[in-house]
Amino acid sequence: MLAVFMDSKQVSTREVEVPRPPPGYALIRMRVAGICNTDLELQRGYYRFSGIPGHEFVGTVVAADASALVGKRVVGEINLACGDCSFCAVGLGRHCASRTVLGIVKHPGAFAEYLTLPEANLRLIPDHITDEEAVFVEPLAAACEILEQVEVARGSEVALLGDGKLGLLICQTLVAHGAQVTIFGRHAEKLRIAQQAGALVSTASDGARFPFVVDASGSADGLRQAVKLVRPRGTVIMKSTIHEAVSLDMAPVIVNEITLLGSRCGRFEPAIELLAAGKVDVRSMISAEFPLAEAPAAFAEAARPGVLKVLLRGAG
Amino acid sequence: MLAVFMDSKQVSTREVEVPRPPPGYALIRMRVAGICNTDLELQRGYYRFSGIPGHEFVGTVVAADASALVGKRVVGEINLACGDCSFCAVGLGRHCASRTVLGIVKHPGAFAEYLTLPEANLRLIPDHITDEEAVFVEPLAAACEILEQVEVARGSEVALLGDGKLGLLICQTLVAHGAQVTIFGRHAEKLRIAQQAGALVSTASDGARFPFVVDASGSADGLRQAVKLVRPRGTVIMKSTIHEAVSLDMAPVIVNEITLLGSRCGRFEPAIELLAAGKVDVRSMISAEFPLAEAPAAFAEAARPGVLKVLLRGAG
Repeated sequence: MLAVFMDSKQVSTREVEVPRPPPGYALIRMRVAGICNTDLELQRGYYRFSGIPGHEFVGTVVAADASALVGKRVVGEINLACGDCSFCAVGLGRHCASRTVLGIVKHPGAFAEYLTLPEANLRLIPDHITDEEAVFVEPLAAACEILEQVEVARGSEVALLGDGKLGLLICQTLVAHGAQVTIFGRHAEKLRIAQQAGALVSTASDGARFPFVVDASGSADGLRQAVKLVRPRGTVIMKSTIHEAVSLDMAPVIVNEITLLGSRCGRFEPAIELLAAGKVDVRSMISAEFPLAEAPAAFAEAARPGVLKVLLRGAG
Repeated sequence: MLAVFMDSKQVSTREVEVPRPPPGYALIRMRVAGICNTDLELQRGYYRFSGIPGHEFVGTVVAADASALVGKRVVGEINLACGDCSFCAVGLGRHCASRTVLGIVKHPGAFAEYLTLPEANLRLIPDHITDEEAVFVEPLAAACEILEQVEVARGSEVALLGDGKLGLLICQTLVAHGAQVTIFGRHAEKLRIAQQAGALVSTASDGARFPFVVDASGSADGLRQAVKLVRPRGTVIMKSTIHEAVSLDMAPVIVNEITLLGSRCGRFEPAIELLAAGKVDVRSMISAEFPLAEAPAAFAEAARPGVLKVLLRGAG
């Protein structure tokens, strides 16, 4: 089968053997996959990744122990957990210490004609959700994770830093939840998507008045700005991984009893529900689409400033 | 009256006029006051402080609008809040933006024969709590604040970094609450107090296994170690103000969805209850006592490594 291969910061395609799913695993034919910032970071050398990347996908099950799955359209939870530890016991396999991660840590990813995942990781996609929408389930789940970690009352004011892919998904998720979102960003076209979703666009640097600030800027500067925007006893949700040591003045964080909360992946169910109910518009966030064979060009496009989601299309 | 005066990093004593309490304020004769790390930081030049310091005290009310207060032994909440804002409305005058702070921000402090405070700030001290115990109410309230911010189930494992004054109060408060505390410190004598209170003393650098880590080390290194000790989805409570920019690797905080929580002053009631019930031993934490007139020597003693609480005694 055709697969994308990443090694030494190079992205190429090559022919490899179709993976054989062990017992309890399904073999899935990739329909559409999405390039995420994490994939671009893998390419830049983080995590010393070598192998088949890709963790955002929708596919069709072609083989599984559970025959009811065969032929079904699915997305897949990317963390392959041990199932036995204290985190797994409470449904937090996303934090299992011995987990592997689809396309990121020791499990071949979705940028290939076929991939495997434990059947327990699969979630069925309702017919009226298109492939191009379903491929957003994984990043949308990461946006929904905020509402699983923090109780944001309807009507709450939330400042959102960053108008990238994740920022726009967070924006729409929070607006759908009933929050009053003020977005801080740099790209007029992206901010327009946020505005259409119902967010306010900040024109000036607001004072420290927000009970919640979400940092999806991906930068240390963004995190520092987030701390300046949050009010005493408020919460800063750190949503985008920053790959450098952050120099932060902790005195106001302590004096004002601010909470800094790390936030990563989320459960898929709330994301599928949002898409099923038509409460988020992900189509406006698709910048380009390439066949799997043109993955190197797709990666180059995804890395261009201003570009939002770039999709890879499988054989179907 | 005699008062301690701090200016340009110098501590001296001088004669000043007895303050006149405005309506709603009480005049209090200081009985015993405690030197806190914040006082030492004021002396080092933080906050550009000039005036009478001191915010830990127990005193006797000598004049008040509410005649029932006169003659009573009291401690005093140090934040003088506006009473009108959204924080004051929910009992969080400690975060009122226009507050002044006894002996720290624009309100003369307790290192003097007399001080004034709004009557609403005063809390009566039961007879069986001694002056030497009551003077610990303010820092003990700061320790209790942790349990107001975070739900720590009885039996929870808590790592505590720092064996200074605040660390030992936190240690005793958490042990009294039923937590299993492991303390990390550098001073054998101070660690012995923690051990006598029921804490375990860490001998090695434990792994990232604690659901709660309290950083009372007062150092950036301590905060970095705290992040290494906390388990995924755990909470680091930042309890001591760090007066420098902290360089912190935020990637593990985000990936492991860790909460970093700033924590400062607390309500006095839980602290008075702990002392009244004899659940914390503060006497073992008193290193020295000086008359008010010898405040410069008391400050020098308090700044010596290894010294715990230094008290100033008023006229009585």
